[in-house]
Amino acid sequence: MDYMKESLAKHREWKGKLEVVSRAPVGCAEELSLAYTPGVAAPCLAIKDDPLEAYALTRKWNTVAVVTDGSAVLGLGNIGALAGMPVMEGKCALFKAFAGVDAVPVCLATQDTEEIIATVRNIAPSYGGINLEDISAPRCFEIERRLKAELDIPVFHDDQHGTAVVLSAALINALKVVKKDISTARIVINGAGSAGVAIAEFLLLSGAGDLVVCDKAGVIGDSDEFNPVQRELSRRTNPRGVKGQLSDAVAGADVFIGVSVAGALSEADVRSMARDAVVFAMANPVPEIDPSAAKRAGARVVATGRSDHPNQINNVLAFPGIFRGALDARAKDITDDMQLAAARAIAGLVSDEELSEDYILPRAFDPRIAPAVARAVAAAAE
Amino acid sequence: MDYMKESLAKHREWKGKLEVVSRAPVGCAEELSLAYTPGVAAPCLAIKDDPLEAYALTRKWNTVAVVTDGSAVLGLGNIGALAGMPVMEGKCALFKAFAGVDAVPVCLATQDTEEIIATVRNIAPSYGGINLEDISAPRCFEIERRLKAELDIPVFHDDQHGTAVVLSAALINALKVVKKDISTARIVINGAGSAGVAIAEFLLLSGAGDLVVCDKAGVIGDSDEFNPVQRELSRRTNPRGVKGQLSDAVAGADVFIGVSVAGALSEADVRSMARDAVVFAMANPVPEIDPSAAKRAGARVVATGRSDHPNQINNVLAFPGIFRGALDARAKDITDDMQLAAARAIAGLVSDEELSEDYILPRAFDPRIAPAVARAVAAAAE
Repeated sequence: MDYMKESLAKHREWKGKLEVVSRAPVGCAEELSLAYTPGVAAPCLAIKDDPLEAYALTRKWNTVAVVTDGSAVLGLGNIGALAGMPVMEGKCALFKAFAGVDAVPVCLATQDTEEIIATVRNIAPSYGGINLEDISAPRCFEIERRLKAELDIPVFHDDQHGTAVVLSAALINALKVVKKDISTARIVINGAGSAGVAIAEFLLLSGAGDLVVCDKAGVIGDSDEFNPVQRELSRRTNPRGVKGQLSDAVAGADVFIGVSVAGALSEADVRSMARDAVVFAMANPVPEIDPSAAKRAGARVVATGRSDHPNQINNVLAFPGIFRGALDARAKDITDDMQLAAARAIAGLVSDEELSEDYILPRAFDPRIAPAVARAVAAAAE
Repeated sequence: MDYMKESLAKHREWKGKLEVVSRAPVGCAEELSLAYTPGVAAPCLAIKDDPLEAYALTRKWNTVAVVTDGSAVLGLGNIGALAGMPVMEGKCALFKAFAGVDAVPVCLATQDTEEIIATVRNIAPSYGGINLEDISAPRCFEIERRLKAELDIPVFHDDQHGTAVVLSAALINALKVVKKDISTARIVINGAGSAGVAIAEFLLLSGAGDLVVCDKAGVIGDSDEFNPVQRELSRRTNPRGVKGQLSDAVAGADVFIGVSVAGALSEADVRSMARDAVVFAMANPVPEIDPSAAKRAGARVVATGRSDHPNQINNVLAFPGIFRGALDARAKDITDDMQLAAARAIAGLVSDEELSEDYILPRAFDPRIAPAVARAVAAAAE
């Protein structure tokens, strides 16, 4: 199927992928008097007296804003917030389908860091959580950090942390398959944008002992070629002091994690890796290396972002359950512990009997996923 | 029924009056590939090439933000945006029930005029229109004026203009009943906040020739007791130079329009009015004068905001159809002409045969209203 052509036709037919419906009847004067004036004054006053009542008397408890400035939409780049709207509506549809979360798109007419922060802060009261989406690095780091500090509801940049959680779940199980340990495995990340940095941070947190991060200019270091976030990260990674380009970093590596561009990893690169290499080529829609080429070159476990290959690393495994758990626990934040719990919960859905080179993650539509993730996240929030 | 108590119980049961549902199926990998990645890139790119495609490929064409800062919620005053949320959810429920509009609450964490303007401007791309709600005067005037000028989607402060439209429809028919003409009738408005000022402007536009506006300090004038908006309005009203308090203004008046507080109009005031007086006492929930007391004192046509008396002046007669028409016509603004057309359309739904002292407006649940208003508004937009 030509997904692009068919999707455009479907979008014309749908005329928007979301709809807002009323849970309260308003079909006669009496119903109006309860759902609206004059009766509605009662829940208003109850919330005025106790702001926490908003979680019982309005939809705040179940509503997430999916916020973008359109600066890094899918692999399409800076196409602007309005053009990003179909992605945001799709994300909101997934929130509902996978975890019962009511989500609304908020497409911003600004790409200025301070304006984004101020705007999200100002609209926050209506929501129980904020999902930042498709905001480019390095601005996304500051926007998320500041909003997490300022708001009393969870703020989560899915492109960073959702990806990191699912990747980490995949890595837990891939390392089981190849019988290696995260503390000693040589891990190379290619792509030090929002996802790559978040994955690096999350793997450090998960106990990774030998992590080398590359970007377009090669192995990241403490020099002007790299942005402040990359420079800071370089001081906490690369314990062996590897220098040079990606091909230098992957020689002898146990794990390659690509969040970069199509074709970034060659077959020769894979051949230079250690025995039983793990290759996660997540560039979308075309991976860093073709999965069968990676296999041919000796990789034992290969995963991509694509649904037409085994081992799909798909954010939908994480974000619905993470927000469901955070909302259920009425968490003020989505902490590292909650994210680690989510990764372990996802990995744990593949039993030791099922686990294989071609089955390291549960499939996207496995109905156990969101509830399991939500339970784990809510428990970690307590 | 104790509406307050019952409404609070119902709100606890509803746990929020809105829900977001998906119009696109996302139940299997293939559906996901169309509604989300990779197919969703196609509508994104189509909108990037032609921003107007957002109206065909996303829900923008049918979505309205109901924006409040919680500074003037119902008659409850400045209870804050979070406490205003039940009203906003109710309003959104009405938008859907009466006109099929998808509306979402946006409760703002700021009451600063410039921050409100910047925030609404920044979130505007997701919406086809902005309904400002329960923002106090005089800030609401500047906020609306600036946003109307800056945005290419309709911005409408319902407390001002929705009220003015319905009031005007009621007045058209009330003056028919008493056989008086708007150009010569002596009209007094009590309350020069957002609704009172908007009603005054709208009646001037409709041809009112003798309009006197009062506020707490009496007849408005060009002095320090009044805010700049009231001072400016005073120069275009009160042709006979009436001075003093409300009782001075209503003596001999043909029409009293109250958007003020319970008890503001006495029976003696009504007795001092002209023969066949029209009294619109819209203070909520308790009117400026009890309708039966007004009748006893000689008023011929009496209307209130209450559903338990004849002639209810209810904004729900106007705003759903006004936005429906504006969205259908893809209007960039809701102009005076569109509002005048809405008022005439509402008034026109009461036939000459039906028209009486106790039936000057169609009832709120008359299913002809929103379609008739929408058609008239859309036609006026062309």
